[in-house]
Amino acid sequence: MEYVVGVKILPRTEVLDSQGRAVEKTLSHHGFENLSGCRVGKYVTLNIKADNEDSALKEAEKVSEFVLYNPLIESFEMEIVK
Amino acid sequence: MEYVVGVKILPRTEVLDSQGRAVEKTLSHHGFENLSGCRVGKYVTLNIKADNEDSALKEAEKVSEFVLYNPLIESFEMEIVK
Repeated sequence: MEYVVGVKILPRTEVLDSQGRAVEKTLSHHGFENLSGCRVGKYVTLNIKADNEDSALKEAEKVSEFVLYNPLIESFEMEIVK
Repeated sequence: MEYVVGVKILPRTEVLDSQGRAVEKTLSHHGFENLSGCRVGKYVTLNIKADNEDSALKEAEKVSEFVLYNPLIESFEMEIVK
C-alpha cells in the first residue's frame, strides 16, 4: 500500500527564527493585533510504499533524519495524511 | 484564549516542485526504493488570541491569504495545534 506521510519541520524554540519574526512584524504593522507569535518551518509530504502505517512512519523517520532536517536547529513531527 | 494554528502550505500538484524532485533523486540514489513521491512546502505556526477555535481559524486564514501563501502556485490547509 502507498501511504502519504506529512513531516512538519520547525526551528527549535531556542533558535532565532528570522522568517517568523519578519512575518510577526509585517502583520503587526498591518493591524493584526491578535497575533502573538509565528514560527516558519518546512512541510514535506512523502509518498511511501509500506505494509502498514508503522513501517511507513519508520521509513519517513529515516528519510527525515537523512536529508530533511537539521537536528542542531530544527525539530520534526510526523503524521499519516493518507 | 491563545490558540496555536498550524498552516501547511504546499505547491499545487500542477506546479513543478523542484525541491521535491531534488529530494526524490537524492533518496533514490541512496537506495530508498519505497519512496515514490515527495513535495516540499512550508509549515507555519501562528499564536492567535481568540475566543474560540473557529475565530482563531478565521484569523489564521486571513493571515495566510495576506502574507503566507501565493494562490497562483500554492495551496494551504490549517489545523488547530493547541
